[in-house]
Amino acid sequence: MAPVSDVLLIEANVDDMSPQLVGPLYDGLFAAGAVDVWSAPILMKKGRPALQISALAPLPAASAVERAFFEGSTTLGLRRQRLDRVVLSRSFAKVETGYGSVRVKVGALDGQVLGAHPEFEDCRRLAGKAGVSTREVLSAAAAAARKLLPRRSRRA
Amino acid sequence: MAPVSDVLLIEANVDDMSPQLVGPLYDGLFAAGAVDVWSAPILMKKGRPALQISALAPLPAASAVERAFFEGSTTLGLRRQRLDRVVLSRSFAKVETGYGSVRVKVGALDGQVLGAHPEFEDCRRLAGKAGVSTREVLSAAAAAARKLLPRRSRRA
Amino acid sequence: MAPVSDVLLIEANVDDMSPQLVGPLYDGLFAAGAVDVWSAPILMKKGRPALQISALAPLPAASAVERAFFEGSTTLGLRRQRLDRVVLSRSFAKVETGYGSVRVKVGALDGQVLGAHPEFEDCRRLAGKAGVSTREVLSAAAAAARKLLPRRSRRA
Amino acid sequence: MAPVSDVLLIEANVDDMSPQLVGPLYDGLFAAGAVDVWSAPILMKKGRPALQISALAPLPAASAVERAFFEGSTTLGLRRQRLDRVVLSRSFAKVETGYGSVRVKVGALDGQVLGAHPEFEDCRRLAGKAGVSTREVLSAAAAAARKLLPRRSRRA
Amino acid sequence: MAPVSDVLLIEANVDDMSPQLVGPLYDGLFAAGAVDVWSAPILMKKGRPALQISALAPLPAASAVERAFFEGSTTLGLRRQRLDRVVLSRSFAKVETGYGSVRVKVGALDGQVLGAHPEFEDCRRLAGKAGVSTREVLSAAAAAARKLLPRRSRRA
Amino acid sequence: MAPVSDVLLIEANVDDMSPQLVGPLYDGLFAAGAVDVWSAPILMKKGRPALQISALAPLPAASAVERAFFEGSTTLGLRRQRLDRVVLSRSFAKVETGYGSVRVKVGALDGQVLGAHPEFEDCRRLAGKAGVSTREVLSAAAAAARKLLPRRSRRA
Repeated sequence: MAPVSDVLLIEANVDDMSPQLVGPLYDGLFAAGAVDVWSAPILMKKGRPALQISALAPLPAASAVERAFFEGSTTLGLRRQRLDRVVLSRSFAKVETGYGSVRVKVGALDGQVLGAHPEFEDCRRLAGKAGVSTREVLSAAAAAARKLLPRRSRRA
Repeated sequence: MAPVSDVLLIEANVDDMSPQLVGPLYDGLFAAGAVDVWSAPILMKKGRPALQISALAPLPAASAVERAFFEGSTTLGLRRQRLDRVVLSRSFAKVETGYGSVRVKVGALDGQVLGAHPEFEDCRRLAGKAGVSTREVLSAAAAAARKLLPRRSRRA
Repeated sequence: MAPVSDVLLIEANVDDMSPQLVGPLYDGLFAAGAVDVWSAPILMKKGRPALQISALAPLPAASAVERAFFEGSTTLGLRRQRLDRVVLSRSFAKVETGYGSVRVKVGALDGQVLGAHPEFEDCRRLAGKAGVSTREVLSAAAAAARKLLPRRSRRA
Repeated sequence: MAPVSDVLLIEANVDDMSPQLVGPLYDGLFAAGAVDVWSAPILMKKGRPALQISALAPLPAASAVERAFFEGSTTLGLRRQRLDRVVLSRSFAKVETGYGSVRVKVGALDGQVLGAHPEFEDCRRLAGKAGVSTREVLSAAAAAARKLLPRRSRRA
Repeated sequence: MAPVSDVLLIEANVDDMSPQLVGPLYDGLFAAGAVDVWSAPILMKKGRPALQISALAPLPAASAVERAFFEGSTTLGLRRQRLDRVVLSRSFAKVETGYGSVRVKVGALDGQVLGAHPEFEDCRRLAGKAGVSTREVLSAAAAAARKLLPRRSRRA
Repeated sequence: MAPVSDVLLIEANVDDMSPQLVGPLYDGLFAAGAVDVWSAPILMKKGRPALQISALAPLPAASAVERAFFEGSTTLGLRRQRLDRVVLSRSFAKVETGYGSVRVKVGALDGQVLGAHPEFEDCRRLAGKAGVSTREVLSAAAAAARKLLPRRSRRA
């Protein structure tokens, strides 16, 4: 199966902080070693809208990530739990489009290629240079990246 | 058809205010004459989470409601548009439950009763007195309120 | 410019109805002539979570759509406003994939093709037949549909 | 107390997939053995809107559910954790409404009936046959289902 | 590091309950001993909008909180997992504003003060008395509370 | 009252586009002349999660903004309506903090100052230089900006 690692999910509910500070908080959490950060709109007691902010931290980064939460937000408490993280094995390839070459992240499970994902920032950069929409370049890259996929045939 | 009135929908996008202040802002908007207030989570430029706050104001209350927005929130601008408001004609009835009597709002369109809605605060109060859940009293009241509805038969 | 038509946006905020009923409400609104229906999570007074439900109705369907709101939901009031609706001129094409042929909706503005969108239900059906994921067929169809697009070159 | 079972919560954050594919992804997860599937709007790094997709899998289905995530979505990684699942003991009953008979799911804790829930699909089907709204049949069934509940009296 | 305690996160997905009942459900969960309660909008199978409701319970309160879920909502099942809870050590101070004195919650990590948060209800009450917005009093209190913070200087 | 201008609100519901493209779409809409852009999670027909994307355009920019929608997203149709936009009259000031000087946007209605908002990007930049959190600098700037406000006394 896919490689597994042991990580901590660290979360805070924040209802008394300007949402402007969410961006710098994300930056601080990544700088402290988080491998992923996200948030969701929630409803807290007394009908207060709030944000639940989540960070995924490798064990050695945990206490730095916790400190980043307390420094970058107004929260007075965190929740913390252990999780397994399952990831596809990843490799990189390159595809050509009419706008230039784009890196592609290829994910495989048990040796079988399951997805080929053009690097978004490459597409954005090429779109800017060509004066077309990022949508157009991403679409071109996704079409080109299909050649990296095997014809799947589960039933045949 | 149903009675129609002319109202203003006044809206602000707020991304730099503690969500704690949403409750007092609602109170201020209602106090200024708004007939309805609600909010929705949105995503603003630079990936900032924010709230869109909406108030419905009869025309004579419009400028007081606008002032309430500017005093109770951090917004520097509002959007404002005219809307029609269509409401069922409403009357009130009372139903008996095992927990006490509950007021019921009855809505009708062109003389046809379309809904009978137990007053939530009555249910909550009776639930507290009886030591049962509000869910139980609301369910009892909703069952009792069905007697106020005609058997509907669109096709027959 | 793109063709424009005059439609009504009809909306209700619903906080006292089981969310199970949202599906049948959508069906009722479409059956009454709505051309689009959607909803968004909102927060109403007293901190109550609710749904704002929106329907777009051509003028002749307006009163049937309003009735569908009142019959299919618990709302006692609606908001209604006039909007312009701007649509790309649309035509249909067909593309071949390794899984069968897929219809493609082609949108153009002032004679310039801007998008070519595989019909989702075609992809889903072919995926079921081939025993692959809908994602795989949609990806194949999107790649094939690129041939229907001109090479865009705004700056050149 | 209520019966408990050991399950896995498997989750992915997806920001690079057409939301059209959420429906087929749910289908694939259920087909692989998930007992529940849901999603929530989230905000990822760089201010990107995304979906967090969650599936609950009995232990023996876990690896099939993980594979369904990787095949049906664009995700390159999953989170996985053990949970207890506490369920009411359930039985089924039938109630009569003016529109036909409706199955009712009855939930009990330590022998005490706590809820009686009309089967939604029965209500929808009967509503279609009778030409009334699903709301009307569900309301009738809920009123009838109250007879299956004991008069609760926590304090008496 | 900060004090840690062992708690249970108990969650339910609810798609067949009037959102009006969310308020009383929160009240019931807190009354049963929950230390925090929140909810998030989710999308369940068959495209149904729903709410995920979460409660944090100290171990001794767990079974009362579970019962409160089953009595106050329509759910037939719960998810339950152990979490660590990390909290700043807290103390209380008082600050003076032009509107009266406001209590301030001061949070510290390893002896270092990281935040000083005016009590919202104090601000709301003083605002009502002074006839100004809660925003104004909260802003005054936050400015006054800054004196409780050390000048932070991570790099110096 | 506050200055009013006539603008267009242009909106699209998008359910078949990778959310990665939301960022470049925002950029394209602003480049075309939009004065504000935001989005909200919605639920479309067949239970599909989607985004409603909104742009506010001065009348002369309207057709460029519409074209940016069609080029940067997959939408085949837009909604368009006229709105009034009410804005506070704005001026700029500067305040000193321990971290450097910060620009402050001051909003007034009928000559009365209602808010003084530190420029977020100034705070972020100074925080980076000082090695403290943006939260800390914003808090310092907000405290300093209070001196620009009159003591409000609605009742006195």
